[in-house]
Amino acid sequence: MSYKVVFHIDWDDDQILKMALVNIENLLKDPSAISSKIHLVANGESVRFFRKEFCGENYPKIKELHSNGVRFCICNNSLNKLKYKPENMLDICEIVPTGVIEICRLQDAGFAYIKP
Amino acid sequence: MSYKVVFHIDWDDDQILKMALVNIENLLKDPSAISSKIHLVANGESVRFFRKEFCGENYPKIKELHSNGVRFCICNNSLNKLKYKPENMLDICEIVPTGVIEICRLQDAGFAYIKP
Amino acid sequence: MSYKVVFHIDWDDDQILKMALVNIENLLKDPSAISSKIHLVANGESVRFFRKEFCGENYPKIKELHSNGVRFCICNNSLNKLKYKPENMLDICEIVPTGVIEICRLQDAGFAYIKP
Repeated sequence: MSYKVVFHIDWDDDQILKMALVNIENLLKDPSAISSKIHLVANGESVRFFRKEFCGENYPKIKELHSNGVRFCICNNSLNKLKYKPENMLDICEIVPTGVIEICRLQDAGFAYIKP
Repeated sequence: MSYKVVFHIDWDDDQILKMALVNIENLLKDPSAISSKIHLVANGESVRFFRKEFCGENYPKIKELHSNGVRFCICNNSLNKLKYKPENMLDICEIVPTGVIEICRLQDAGFAYIKP
Repeated sequence: MSYKVVFHIDWDDDQILKMALVNIENLLKDPSAISSKIHLVANGESVRFFRKEFCGENYPKIKELHSNGVRFCICNNSLNKLKYKPENMLDICEIVPTGVIEICRLQDAGFAYIKP
């Protein structure tokens, strides 16, 4: 069995990011989750965690999860609002036009939704 | 393409309401979202944001979203608990008996769920 | 009609637990919800609310909801992280290996998701 799941973060709260990363890590290490599809969608102020210059202590975990197939989707509306440029974001990020539409699209495609 | 989505708010936190309204605004302005069905369900203490006498600075945005088809569904259990009367609420609101049942009902009908 | 719904809590915040319990109570008392299936999945620090020695004032409500068929599923990864043992948890709890997988599994089975 495998799972399809979208994790959603939006607040500028390091504890929430950490919870999301631990959630994903726990999911991936479960034998039942082999070949699961996992997306994290970040919008609102949470996008700042994915700036190259800011990512800091969470970067190794994010990079490891990405290398295990987790996709990190960042809302471009939020980048615009905060005046961040796509090139300021970690290379592992995918920029999506509208975070909430990405979340709708994924749920429509059968993904479970989890809000840490 | 179009989307069906229910946004859920429950806390008495102005930042969360603002996030929900911006989320909905971003969704509506995306060309792919034409004729989407968008509901916001408010329960718990968040219902106070929809009192006529309180709504304040958020009112113009709420009214504009409503005129664009967004439905604002307010939990009657929460009104009772806080001793608010339906007639104290903004005219654009729909009062639903139980907010969480409205959310279940919408998800059963294929709506995506987003918790800002 | 009846509903299938999973409530998810993860933070060590008593107000969130109380919101979840009131949500479930309101759902159960609605005539349309007869024979609904309701699960609460607790992971992260929220698992501490279900320790025998800690549960305190929320225990009567939890016990009552359980006797009405609500299932309380506690994440074993979170127990391990906090060094709690399954035998320290309330008897009404079910220990699940990974909370987020339980949530995925339930949504895959048609359960609505609500995050108080």
